[in-house]
Amino acid sequence: MITLSLVGIGSGNPDHLTRQAVQRLETADVILLPRKGAEKTDLADLRRMVAGEILSTSPKIVEFDYPVRDANTPKYLDGVNTWHDALAGIWQDLISRHLPSDGHVALMVWGDPSLYDSTLRIADRLVARGLQLKVDVIPGITSLQMLTAAHAIPLNTLGAPVLITTGRKLRDDGWPADADTVAVMLDGECSFTHLDPTGIDIWWGAYVGMPQQVLKSGALANLSEEIVATRAKARAESGWIMDIYLLRKS
Amino acid sequence: MITLSLVGIGSGNPDHLTRQAVQRLETADVILLPRKGAEKTDLADLRRMVAGEILSTSPKIVEFDYPVRDANTPKYLDGVNTWHDALAGIWQDLISRHLPSDGHVALMVWGDPSLYDSTLRIADRLVARGLQLKVDVIPGITSLQMLTAAHAIPLNTLGAPVLITTGRKLRDDGWPADADTVAVMLDGECSFTHLDPTGIDIWWGAYVGMPQQVLKSGALANLSEEIVATRAKARAESGWIMDIYLLRKS
Ligand SMILES: C[S@@+](CC[C@H](N)C(=O)[O-])C[C@H]1O[C@@H](n2cnc3c(N)ncnc32)[C@H](O)[C@@H]1O
Ligand SMILES: C[S@@+](CC[C@H](N)C(=O)[O-])C[C@H]1O[C@@H](n2cnc3c(N)ncnc32)[C@H](O)[C@@H]1O
Repeated sequence: MITLSLVGIGSGNPDHLTRQAVQRLETADVILLPRKGAEKTDLADLRRMVAGEILSTSPKIVEFDYPVRDANTPKYLDGVNTWHDALAGIWQDLISRHLPSDGHVALMVWGDPSLYDSTLRIADRLVARGLQLKVDVIPGITSLQMLTAAHAIPLNTLGAPVLITTGRKLRDDGWPADADTVAVMLDGECSFTHLDPTGIDIWWGAYVGMPQQVLKSGALANLSEEIVATRAKARAESGWIMDIYLLRKS
Repeated sequence: MITLSLVGIGSGNPDHLTRQAVQRLETADVILLPRKGAEKTDLADLRRMVAGEILSTSPKIVEFDYPVRDANTPKYLDGVNTWHDALAGIWQDLISRHLPSDGHVALMVWGDPSLYDSTLRIADRLVARGLQLKVDVIPGITSLQMLTAAHAIPLNTLGAPVLITTGRKLRDDGWPADADTVAVMLDGECSFTHLDPTGIDIWWGAYVGMPQQVLKSGALANLSEEIVATRAKARAESGWIMDIYLLRKS
């Protein structure tokens, strides 16, 4: 039986690693480390830094390249599924080459493995292929927690619900019926510009938890253009950006 | 200027403390430690254990009692607001008695300070009363992350939204319009029994992350009664219970 630890490492600040995350990485036989592709270089660098500077042991590090995701596949989900299949093949191959049959392999997952992340789905594919695998999930601080911590705000208002969603869904479906607070992730297009901003406040953050963190908060009507411009500039300067925001009806 | 660190400590497992949480607690002049009242003894014990066994320094520990919350106040929110006012008064008094004017005081917050927690609201009251206060929020692993990690499941389905809500809201409003996944917290009454269970799966957990953790998952139609019974029994045995669950339409 192989143990696969999916270890949440937080979203940019190595001090957000939990004691358990450090322990799981330290006791792994092998750490699989994605090099690039879907991942940005800075993020691969953070993983390398964790492996090189924070762990008190030296597990074997096996770097691998991400397959290129076919953005042209007609149906979005088909593209994602094919890509997950390809990744499962790569993991399976690396595990069989580098691990004994009862070994412990770990992967560092951005944020928390439960939130808009594909590693659990890929692990399920390995199990479906018949691999004797115990999947061990270690929670990590999400980018959403980093956002609320950086702004020092609660996620919810008193006893009220919160919807976590994607930029695409916000554009397609508009403001949801059931929540006055909406957290938006995976948004490449500033989808808040598609809303009527009246009565909505925004707490926005890019690179949250990282040295280059940028935060903006206030009435959406006042800030919308400023965020679009700030985001475009930061993205042009860094070559990449990750941003997240909370919207609240007041 | 006083610094008030609200330090998320996770929801029952001291190994879920982050490196940053440990660092913030270690460098505090004073740690305020709620003794009981709204809090269960086991939870106060976990905080004492963190302070006593995990920190490599010995900040001054100031224990205090929670004011009793008036459950009879006619309007729910008034009761909560009065209670937050009372707590703000207690904090202010403790800070002025135990801290120098530029001191650093820390509070250990269950889970993450952003999620269904009152400490940020109480801190806001201190600022409103004119206290020179810098509020510093340290994210912690939430009980929801513990739940998904324990079950080794993703929170969301591919690219889809998730609603986080309370038992009360689920009972009052029924299944939300905008999400096929609903996470329910603060539910003293197994509010899932108010839903038509057809086509709904549940992943339930009590005391997640703690030694006495109990997990159940499967079709809600099959599990509903079993969870109600398990919950009642565990609660009777321990004297208290905290549970959380994820519901997903299949
Ligand atoms: C594929 S999802 C992974 C989320 C991750 N599992 C987590 O727990 O935060 C990537 C999205 O997370 C958000 N994100 C992740 N890291 C971030 C950061 N450091 N700053 C801002 N947003 C971030 C962005 O919305 C981004 O589009
Ligand atoms: C006042 S809220 C605090 C939530 C906390 N801030 C967090 O991040 O998880 C308390 C609710 O959290 C959930 N909860 C907290 N700790 C839990 C645990 N160890 N096991 C199960 N549920 C828990 C329960 O739904 C409980 O009613």
